[in-house]
Amino acid sequence: MHTATATDFLSDFQTMSTFGATSGGGVDRQAATDADAQARLWLKSWLEDHGFQVHFDAIGNQFGLLEFTPGAPYVLVGSHMDSQPLAGRFDGSYGVLSAAHAAKRIKDEVELNGGHPPLNLAVVNWFNEEGSRFTPSMMGSGVFTGKLSIDAAYNAKDLSGIRAKDELERHGFIGSFQMPTPAAYAEIHVEQGRSMENAQITIGLVAETWGAKKFQVTVKGEQAHTGSTLLVDRRDALFGAAIIISELRRYAESRSGAPLQASVSTMEVLPNSPVTVAREVKMNLDLRSPDWDTLQDGFHAVEAIIKGAESEAKVKVDLKLTHEWKLSPYTPEGVELADSVASELGMRYQRVQTVAGHDSTNMKDVTPTVMLFVPSVEGISHNEAELTSDEDMLAGVEMMTGTLRRLVQGDLN
Amino acid sequence: MHTATATDFLSDFQTMSTFGATSGGGVDRQAATDADAQARLWLKSWLEDHGFQVHFDAIGNQFGLLEFTPGAPYVLVGSHMDSQPLAGRFDGSYGVLSAAHAAKRIKDEVELNGGHPPLNLAVVNWFNEEGSRFTPSMMGSGVFTGKLSIDAAYNAKDLSGIRAKDELERHGFIGSFQMPTPAAYAEIHVEQGRSMENAQITIGLVAETWGAKKFQVTVKGEQAHTGSTLLVDRRDALFGAAIIISELRRYAESRSGAPLQASVSTMEVLPNSPVTVAREVKMNLDLRSPDWDTLQDGFHAVEAIIKGAESEAKVKVDLKLTHEWKLSPYTPEGVELADSVASELGMRYQRVQTVAGHDSTNMKDVTPTVMLFVPSVEGISHNEAELTSDEDMLAGVEMMTGTLRRLVQGDLN
Repeated sequence: MHTATATDFLSDFQTMSTFGATSGGGVDRQAATDADAQARLWLKSWLEDHGFQVHFDAIGNQFGLLEFTPGAPYVLVGSHMDSQPLAGRFDGSYGVLSAAHAAKRIKDEVELNGGHPPLNLAVVNWFNEEGSRFTPSMMGSGVFTGKLSIDAAYNAKDLSGIRAKDELERHGFIGSFQMPTPAAYAEIHVEQGRSMENAQITIGLVAETWGAKKFQVTVKGEQAHTGSTLLVDRRDALFGAAIIISELRRYAESRSGAPLQASVSTMEVLPNSPVTVAREVKMNLDLRSPDWDTLQDGFHAVEAIIKGAESEAKVKVDLKLTHEWKLSPYTPEGVELADSVASELGMRYQRVQTVAGHDSTNMKDVTPTVMLFVPSVEGISHNEAELTSDEDMLAGVEMMTGTLRRLVQGDLN
Repeated sequence: MHTATATDFLSDFQTMSTFGATSGGGVDRQAATDADAQARLWLKSWLEDHGFQVHFDAIGNQFGLLEFTPGAPYVLVGSHMDSQPLAGRFDGSYGVLSAAHAAKRIKDEVELNGGHPPLNLAVVNWFNEEGSRFTPSMMGSGVFTGKLSIDAAYNAKDLSGIRAKDELERHGFIGSFQMPTPAAYAEIHVEQGRSMENAQITIGLVAETWGAKKFQVTVKGEQAHTGSTLLVDRRDALFGAAIIISELRRYAESRSGAPLQASVSTMEVLPNSPVTVAREVKMNLDLRSPDWDTLQDGFHAVEAIIKGAESEAKVKVDLKLTHEWKLSPYTPEGVELADSVASELGMRYQRVQTVAGHDSTNMKDVTPTVMLFVPSVEGISHNEAELTSDEDMLAGVEMMTGTLRRLVQGDLN
């Protein structure tokens, strides 16, 4: 990358990281908060300053369009700028800024060389990929791909009861633009795992996404006085929940064979009073594996663990499957194309899997997709200490530029 | 009790139970909520209609005074009308209404018989006994007895950040009245346990209150992505908390010897996001026993359980002792006096212990105190299904009337 271009990118990345910046060196920029709005307005200015036409659609996805050939289909490239609470600066934001800089370089090349690429180019900042404030996650790309109804998205409420739609309206992020289904989609993201760092590679070509089963668990007990109610008389929902959380983790760690990630990370306790046994606990439960049989085994193990908890804590447990998907390939031709670009550019690269979901996980089901990774130091993510080196970030922009150069020529179509 | 008096009491109890009534047959009347304010205004009217002078003190304790002998000290009798969330109708409220009715009967007797008892009589409705909305519990009697500073009480905040003082002011419950330390205190309450029901007795003479150790536990982990962070790399605060909750309960159940109640009932999870490993969990931890050595053993067991959790979940745990007290006797002369009253009235009665804390637990340390129980069906409490029969309630009013008759004569002084 030219030195000036590299300096511009790193400077823009620094500016972008100020929106919702935390004292611990990260960002806290949950979807449709003031910090998220500031980041989106800054992106709007950046895109307009560099000749993009900026539009919002009904769910608040933000598009920046470059028209090379009037009426031609678009290649779409982007990620998300919202974050988890107390999160890192790279997750999502790096992908949006890389997309914008790579697209801008393609525009410069087209203007320099003349000619009309057969496809146009648009940058996207998807709404609410993280899902920490408004569930489900990948909300903007979910609505865009028809996997989630706009009503469900609008009516999602945060913990203080505020609707997603009202927050989008407050910031003026609901637009009437309808982005047509693109001819191709590309995204670059930090790995959020250690595999690339361990293998000492710079570019990951994402070939597959792990399977997952996601559940809502409701543990139902009975309210009682913590002082005077004998242990034998208790139906303690929090005790039941604690058994499930600890036994699930122990099960997942004791297994051999295909990897299995098992997590519980949210909990609502009722009535959450210091002298009253909990009558109800609601929590999530998340299983991920590349192997479907392992997920099925995990599901059966969860059922057995729940039976044990029901018996030991004298509670009733409702287990509701909310989402599931099998190991799913990314567009093989997209992986091939990226392989050829990385080879031409002399990158250290290899095929990788993604455990985390991304907007590309939605997009690959409706359009040919290229998904790229750059490394994460020690695999740390959803944490203020998340880090990708400047060198790796710049290599990623270079790689995305090369990818877009091919995509706007229709090489995936 | 005369039929008319009994009918009045049950009718008033029904009215009182409408404030904060829940669809499940209970009440939800946390301290200084609108429902609590309605109940307090109704009590004010009731007391004024029956010739009591009503005053509020600086922490919102509500007093209804009957002056028989100008300048004489007061006997104080009462309990609290605030409740836990989704709680029963009897806990606290029964005691306040019994106190009011019994005091009114003493007033009628004094007026009928003439004479000036050596002590005056006042009813009290303590502020925030439950502590579910604003901690600590027994707040009004804590400030009254000098065990809690008024600043600490004023600055207690509920989960939405509202200060106790602001809520008291909003309802007009901060007064300038200073109730002098009474010559004696009496309280009647539902047992919230099974011992009296099992023994088929109507009146419990509370002779002792169990010892307790109360802790705040903070489990510190590290935020991480639930999808991509390997189990081996996690420092999951919620897993650590789950180990502590489940192992504590198992320890308490496996013991023999003196009884030990062990509870965790509140939990705050950060960041409480579906795709982020918890970085911190805050929870309470409550040990109760009549036996101090058992409490010490329990404390050492908690320390060992925490060490195990720190090692297994790779977390750090802070354990902070917030309150502790040993098994503590009620005024022996008060128990003797109640024994003599119950015997005269032909009650089925016996000495009992209390596991739950009461405002009398504070009062007995500053003034001679009589604490009485009526039975709870199946021991159910802090639950909408809490129940005491009409017959037992009326027997309790009778017993309290007999007790006050003696107390205003200075029999405990």
